[in-house]
Formats: sequence, C-alpha cells, structure tokens
Amino acid sequence: MSTEPMRERVTTYVKSLQDQIVKALEELDPTAPPFKRDSWTRPQGGEGQSCVFAVPPAEDGTPSVNTVLEKAGVNISVVHGMLPPPAIKQMRADHSTIPFDPEKPTSLPFFAAGISLVIHPRNPFAPTVHANYRYFEITDPDAKVKEGNADAATATAKKEPLAWWFGGGSDLTPSYLFDEDAAHFHRTLKTACDAHGSALFPALKKWCDEYFFIPHRSESRGVGGIFFDDLTDGPHQRLTVASPESAPERPRTAEEIFAFVRACGDCFVQSYVPILEKRMNTPTEAHHRRWQLLRRGRYVEFNLVYDRGTKFGLMTPGARVESILMSLPETARWEYMSEVGTAENSEEARLVEVLKNPKDWA
Amino acid sequence: MSTEPMRERVTTYVKSLQDQIVKALEELDPTAPPFKRDSWTRPQGGEGQSCVFAVPPAEDGTPSVNTVLEKAGVNISVVHGMLPPPAIKQMRADHSTIPFDPEKPTSLPFFAAGISLVIHPRNPFAPTVHANYRYFEITDPDAKVKEGNADAATATAKKEPLAWWFGGGSDLTPSYLFDEDAAHFHRTLKTACDAHGSALFPALKKWCDEYFFIPHRSESRGVGGIFFDDLTDGPHQRLTVASPESAPERPRTAEEIFAFVRACGDCFVQSYVPILEKRMNTPTEAHHRRWQLLRRGRYVEFNLVYDRGTKFGLMTPGARVESILMSLPETARWEYMSEVGTAENSEEARLVEVLKNPKDWA
Repeated sequence: MSTEPMRERVTTYVKSLQDQIVKALEELDPTAPPFKRDSWTRPQGGEGQSCVFAVPPAEDGTPSVNTVLEKAGVNISVVHGMLPPPAIKQMRADHSTIPFDPEKPTSLPFFAAGISLVIHPRNPFAPTVHANYRYFEITDPDAKVKEGNADAATATAKKEPLAWWFGGGSDLTPSYLFDEDAAHFHRTLKTACDAHGSALFPALKKWCDEYFFIPHRSESRGVGGIFFDDLTDGPHQRLTVASPESAPERPRTAEEIFAFVRACGDCFVQSYVPILEKRMNTPTEAHHRRWQLLRRGRYVEFNLVYDRGTKFGLMTPGARVESILMSLPETARWEYMSEVGTAENSEEARLVEVLKNPKDWA
Repeated sequence: MSTEPMRERVTTYVKSLQDQIVKALEELDPTAPPFKRDSWTRPQGGEGQSCVFAVPPAEDGTPSVNTVLEKAGVNISVVHGMLPPPAIKQMRADHSTIPFDPEKPTSLPFFAAGISLVIHPRNPFAPTVHANYRYFEITDPDAKVKEGNADAATATAKKEPLAWWFGGGSDLTPSYLFDEDAAHFHRTLKTACDAHGSALFPALKKWCDEYFFIPHRSESRGVGGIFFDDLTDGPHQRLTVASPESAPERPRTAEEIFAFVRACGDCFVQSYVPILEKRMNTPTEAHHRRWQLLRRGRYVEFNLVYDRGTKFGLMTPGARVESILMSLPETARWEYMSEVGTAENSEEARLVEVLKNPKDWA
C-alpha cells in the first residue's frame, strides 16, 4: 500500500490516462492533425491540460471529411481552493464527516483532480462517448500535519482529509444502434467493475440510465454505461442491500476504491476504440448525417439544461468555460417536428425505442 | 372603451398579429415554400397555432440556399388551467393582489394568451430577431359572475381577475453589426413606446440588456431592444422615479397598457423586415457562415441555460416541447478556443465589442 497521499496518486494517474487515451486516438488516424495540447493554470489555484481535436473548416467552405474524429477533448484538471459555506452545506448531505455549523458557516479547503473526455466522431455510424473520473477532498484548515519538516504544499497534501470521495463514469451515445457495440461497451465496463465487487455494475448501470435522461424528451441521452458519485469508505445509498447478511460486494477502503476507479479508466480505450475502428469508415448518405446532427442537438440539450457538472461549472466564477463547453459537438441541428426518426421500422426509430426503454446490454 | 373581456381582446389581437407577420415574411420571399400552419390543442385546456418555416435538406445533401429564411416560427397560444401553489407563491412577489395563505396553499385558475416568434435568416449579414407579447390572468375560483345568463366559458371570462399583467419585448441578434440596422430597430421601438409614456423606452431598453445577457460569456445575446414583465395597473419597480413630483410617464390602466402592447406588436414588421430586405442578398463567403453558426451556438447557450421562458416551459409537465424549442436555430456550431472573432479590427471583433458593452442605439 502506497504511503503517497491519494491526491498525488490520483494526479499521476489521470495524467497517464490522458496520455494513453490521446495516444490511442492519434494512432487510429495517423494522417489527421494531432490533438492540440493546451496547458492552463487557474488563478485561484491549480492547473490543467486540455487535449483537443478539431479541424477548422477550410476558408473556401470545402467540408473537411477526412478525419475520423470531428471534435474531441480529453482534459485533466488538478485544482484546489476554498469552498464557500453553501457548497459545504450541500456536500454535507452525502458526507457527514464534513463539519457544518449553521450558526458559524465557514469556508473549507478543497482539492479536486480528474479527467473528463468527450469524443464526437465524424461518421454517423460511430458513436459519441463520454467518460469522467475524479477525486475530491475537503481538508481541515487547522489539522496537524502528520510529518514535520515539509514545505507548505507537501504539508497540505499530507493532512488527513475531513472527507474524500471518487466519482465518475462512462457512457455511449450512438446515432445508429448496433447491438453488438452497445454490448461490447457495457461488457467491458462490467468486467472491470465485477473484479472489484459484484454490487458495482448493476447499481452503477442503473444510476447511469437515471442520470443521462432528458425529461422533456422522455428519452435517455444514449445507451448508457456506468455513473457514480460520492464513493467513499462509508455506506453508500446506491450500494446497499435489503438484508444485512448479504452485504454488498463493493470496494470499501480508499485503496480499494482507487483500484476500482483505475480499472474503469484503464478499460476506456478497450471499451470504445474497437467500436470506433469498426464504424469509422462506414459509407454514409446525407440523411445519416442529418440524423446524427439532430441527435447532437439532443446531446446539447442534455448538457446545457441538465448536466450538473456543466451547470455547476458555468455558475462558478473564474471557471474555464472553454473546457466546460468542450463537451458540445462541433455542429448540432434542430428541426421543428422533425419526421426523421418517426418512420416505423427505420434504423432511426430503433434507436429512439431503446432510448425510451433502456436495455440491459451486458 | 371595449366591454369585451381583456382575455378575448388579447386573443383576437395575437391571432391577427400572427397573420400579419407571417404574411409579411411570405411576401418577402414569394418563391419559398409557405409557412406551415400547425394547430394544436392542449389536453389540460387551451389551444394554439404554430406557423413554422423550414426547408428540409435534400436527400442528396445539396444545401438548400435559395430561401431568405433558414428557420422561423411565429406561434400563438391561448391556454388556461390551474396554477399549483408554488407557482402562485412565486407570482405573488410581483402581484400582491393574489391571495396566498401558507397554512392553506391552494391552486388558482390562470389564463395566458401570447405570441412568440423567432426568425433565423439564412444570410449571415441578416440578423436573427425575437419577439414575444403575452397577457396573463389569475382568477378567483369563487368569484361572482358579473352578468348572469351566460354559458360557463363566458362566465369565466367575465369574472374580475385577481391579478393580471402584460409582458413581452423584442430584440435583435446580428452576427455582423450594421450600426444603421441596430439604430433602425431601436428607433422603431422607441417611437412606439414614446407615444405611450416617456418612461417606457429607457427602462425597457435597460431591462432588455440585463435580461439577454450570457454570464458565462460576459456578453449580451444580441444588440437588445425592449423587455418587460408584470406590467399592470399598480406601481412597477422598473418604472419609478426618484422624486414623486415627476411621476413617470407610463400607461396606467388596462386599456392604456393594452394599447402600448399593441403598439409594440404592430411595429414589429416595420422594425425588422426592412433590415432583412436590405441584408438578405448580401454576397457571403464561407467564413461568414462559420461565424454565424458560432453566434447561433451562443444563442442556444442563452436559450437553454438562462431563458426563463424556456426553462419554465421545459419543466412544465404536458408542455409542448416542439413549440418551446422552436426558438433554436436549425444549425449551431461550437469550436474550442475559436480564433474567429479575436482578430483586432475585424468585423467579428466589432460585434463582440458591442455585445460586451451595450450601446444606446436610439
């Protein structure tokens, strides 16, 4: 078991995962321009690196159709600062170890490290994918440093956090449904989860279906995957069972949970790249592209209206808006009462049917 | 002065205004397909008509470039039903005549009639425009009917409302700024306002700049116009003056306010169609279209993240989502850290400058 503080281990991990994923995507399309690496620092504390793929349109209007990806971002951020009392109060609901005195509301130091990615391929038969894994800590501003003789940054890192948790997930959003792709994606995640506790996959699959839902359309954003938040060493509302004898099999310690999160992150390339490879050269017609752009409109609707990360991000003063909105597709389309997707037995209607009635793919 | 109930007069007005506006747009582009008239009824009570313009793309992918408009909707709705206690409580903040007993929260009948339009032209030099005028009533479920011997519907209409108000506005969103267009739009609205009270235009212009603002971009959605809400016969927070001697010149009675709202609606065609006519055949290059689509992305961001009408609409069970999202452009674009609009002295940067620092155009 490592004695290195978790915040440093997670930071090292998300950096190496970012490298691994960007490399895999670049290798898939060697003639495309490389991802643009864009490092930034946060004036209030912390830093990050955005790795972004985009091909600006030619000035003469010729469409750029020769790259596998249309728009993609694989971002990491490692930030710290002070959380104001309202945020503390809200987090306390899931983390009772965070002190909160309504009579004397105070800010508390936080640390967050994570990776967040969205990949929008060009071919309408290749699905969009999203993944995000993150670690969060609330620390006691007055805590004793465990070991003396350290500089300030190391000292902070070595304080016992008041609360810590992991969150994340990965989900697939096709415009055209290939059952074998959805099954491959889910099975890859299930295998990764199952090695760390049999309770994980069923609970996190269900949570994913619930989270990535667009109420005003009565449909899911995509065909799901896994989603989780607030995973720490205490009990978790979504990982309980009816009878106490059959304690749910789940990772319990920080060490076990970090190993589980790494397993999810490590399987990302395997869960997605083979699908992309299989679909990226499918011959397409104009109406396939039209449907893809309409589906991307729904993606925008979910992200801007419902996604908590996006909403929270946009409301945060000093937030890096370009990184937050990196998730939006290059192009999206809206038609009033579009007839596309309504023809019975069409491929488009088959997708909509599954979005309205999520399936077990694993 | 008419003895007809206001709800009926407003209904007649928005219907005729819809006809007038759709006709003006159709006459401007006689070879384009006509607007599609789409009547609907609301299961919970009421009806509406959407008049929508769209040209679906050809199946072979040929872009349809021969119409003046790309996407437009001119919708009216006349609906009634019961407002639940939380909505009543919220409305009471601006309308003290609405009864609300926290011990005994009850639902109250409401009536709403309005017109709402958004026009997205195809040419990047022709601006997008939005306008919306609406009338709202809360009625007492137990009120005595003023005149006997009437059928149920007429009886309801003739009850004195517990509260009533008008809201609305009109604003212009260009991708390329022509000072003369912004001035024409604002001056037309100012003339309409000034005839009904000198306090109106300055207050409603300011309100418009404040409302159509995208905080996460630190910029306005467009070059403004007018915006107002909760305009009734009582005092209005935005229409007060420092000294009581100089009472603000504003419409005070229902009759006067309705006349003011009609003046705004009646000047819509004059405020916008001449601009559209002047710009619709401007020669364009691919980068103009790219910038237009990026600006439409910002339009989507405002409407989905901040617009109260859209958010309220999407959260309302049984709402007609297709009508609410009719405001979204046919196509929008997002680029990470786009360099378009950043070049000093460019036409794109000139627009951004004005969106960050709203001007007095009238």
